[in-house]
Amino acid sequence: MANSTDQRSLGTVAMRWHGDKLELLDQRLLPTDEHWITAEGASAVAQCITDMVVRGAPAIGISAAYGVALAARHAGGADWQGDVAQAIDTLAKSRPTAVNLFWALQRMERVLLACQSQDEAAEQLASEAVRIHEEDLAANLAMADHALDVMRPEQAISVLTHCNTGALATGGYGTALGVIRRLHERQLLENVFADETRPWLQGSRLTAWELARDEIPVTLNADGAAAAILASGKVKWVIVGADRITANGDVANKIGTYSLAVLARYHNVGFMVVAPSSTVDMALASGKDIPIEEREGTEIREIRGIPLAPAGVEVFNPVFDVTPASLIDAIVTEKGAVRNPDKAGMKSLFA
Amino acid sequence: MANSTDQRSLGTVAMRWHGDKLELLDQRLLPTDEHWITAEGASAVAQCITDMVVRGAPAIGISAAYGVALAARHAGGADWQGDVAQAIDTLAKSRPTAVNLFWALQRMERVLLACQSQDEAAEQLASEAVRIHEEDLAANLAMADHALDVMRPEQAISVLTHCNTGALATGGYGTALGVIRRLHERQLLENVFADETRPWLQGSRLTAWELARDEIPVTLNADGAAAAILASGKVKWVIVGADRITANGDVANKIGTYSLAVLARYHNVGFMVVAPSSTVDMALASGKDIPIEEREGTEIREIRGIPLAPAGVEVFNPVFDVTPASLIDAIVTEKGAVRNPDKAGMKSLFA
Repeated sequence: MANSTDQRSLGTVAMRWHGDKLELLDQRLLPTDEHWITAEGASAVAQCITDMVVRGAPAIGISAAYGVALAARHAGGADWQGDVAQAIDTLAKSRPTAVNLFWALQRMERVLLACQSQDEAAEQLASEAVRIHEEDLAANLAMADHALDVMRPEQAISVLTHCNTGALATGGYGTALGVIRRLHERQLLENVFADETRPWLQGSRLTAWELARDEIPVTLNADGAAAAILASGKVKWVIVGADRITANGDVANKIGTYSLAVLARYHNVGFMVVAPSSTVDMALASGKDIPIEEREGTEIREIRGIPLAPAGVEVFNPVFDVTPASLIDAIVTEKGAVRNPDKAGMKSLFA
Repeated sequence: MANSTDQRSLGTVAMRWHGDKLELLDQRLLPTDEHWITAEGASAVAQCITDMVVRGAPAIGISAAYGVALAARHAGGADWQGDVAQAIDTLAKSRPTAVNLFWALQRMERVLLACQSQDEAAEQLASEAVRIHEEDLAANLAMADHALDVMRPEQAISVLTHCNTGALATGGYGTALGVIRRLHERQLLENVFADETRPWLQGSRLTAWELARDEIPVTLNADGAAAAILASGKVKWVIVGADRITANGDVANKIGTYSLAVLARYHNVGFMVVAPSSTVDMALASGKDIPIEEREGTEIREIRGIPLAPAGVEVFNPVFDVTPASLIDAIVTEKGAVRNPDKAGMKSLFA
């Protein structure tokens, strides 16, 4: 299933697993080039995550799981367990904000600890990685059902989304973009407004690319135009993904998400977060506990090496922000939807 | 004064008037290249306005005035008045949203109608254009005084601004950026957060460039990061310019301004609009009457010819939005400040 031939309806996946290597679609080069990078070990996978060859919280988790499987297969020394543990450590340091990464690595570690030999570990860890991948895809399909139950549109609606939460960001189909696919399949989608999503342009480069491939109607806009679009009354729901959700329902997601949540509330537009339960970190009480990654200022100062700003100018480049639960109408996971999320609602998901 | 040598404190101006030609700094090439374009006639000036060689509502008005002066000087035929009237018409069509353009052209037309000969017109129109330029600079200096009266900071504060409202956008010093200069002169400025301002990146390319030149502390951020910055409590005021202000105090300004106004109110941060009274269009009752320019989708799909999105993807690219008066704490003009602007407040400005 990881290499399903039914890629049309599930979207174009970001990774191909070959047992002894992982191929990752280099998302930095989209939409102009479709170039695949081959990772033969865990440190190569970790580098791909840090460098954003692969991105999107669920896809990061899945890739890291495959990275652990590669470490088990290729571990050379007598201390194969130490090598795999070291690989898990390296992968855990690849990016700080998305919790799916740590969740996937914990699953892999549990399997590792139960294995007696390297051969067994290589086999069991590969199976576990494929299972994580398959479960993610299944979760996305389930989330789309739950989301439509919440939305219950009576006619085709337009929605606005931010960043990329599609097949490229997940094991296939997508989270928020999976909901949008489902609306489209049911002929309940009029149009998708896609924020271009500076600085990394996931909206322009990835979401528009995915939607155009699948012939789903999309209109790109500058992030700053979202407010005018919401004010126009054209959009019924803002639908986004998440990188980490805390025990009280606060959500860390791509920078700009919090802005949309404030704007959606102001304009009486629904605001929905769609993410697998692996994104929920019940160990963190609230959003202020989430580590927010800040990336290089060059992501703002340049595009593909072309200077957009004076050299060396100071830049503030946090790549995620935190949306408080109070601004969210529903958090949708594969376990069901939590409306008006709070601590009790989030807890009930895992009951 | 238009070519003042005291450019340090007034900022780097966008135009140089030579009597028989107008030189415009090509703002499309900043911050990497400082290239001046020479316009010898009105249609060349109009093209420079349409193509955004020169931009910013006040700078557009001043350039257009110089364009009319050039038309009078270079008119060749017996029907010199018809030629100049034609030039005014061409200039009026160069961009639709900023009202300073039409205001400046009306002033030039009144002078034209009072002239008996081409020689007189050439002289009088050139004088009027220089006067418009000088008055704009004087207005900016006066606005900074009025704005500080409204803000009355007791210690150094940080502010956030959008687009470019500096010397490059005006006859010198700047509107919103003039207020920021004044804060800096008075040692009341801690830092300026500058939205990069997609799609045209006026913040990265122009505001950061101007501020860095004048050694005023600036930190660039993606537009989508403004909400997180306001939530952090670091910023006391959002200060922006305007392209048109209607009789009830609604403000058309660069796309993304409305978003900031909603966010400022939500976070209890002051929101100030700074613009010369030539930006106020008392003939329009409210913001819904303002024509909003939509520009080419390529501004979103590409940067300097590099594709950022799938070719031909649909784009919504309005370059201005409307902020309702109810979200604005103060509109500052050279005639004074209007707090909590409404119809009566705006009318009082012109009493």
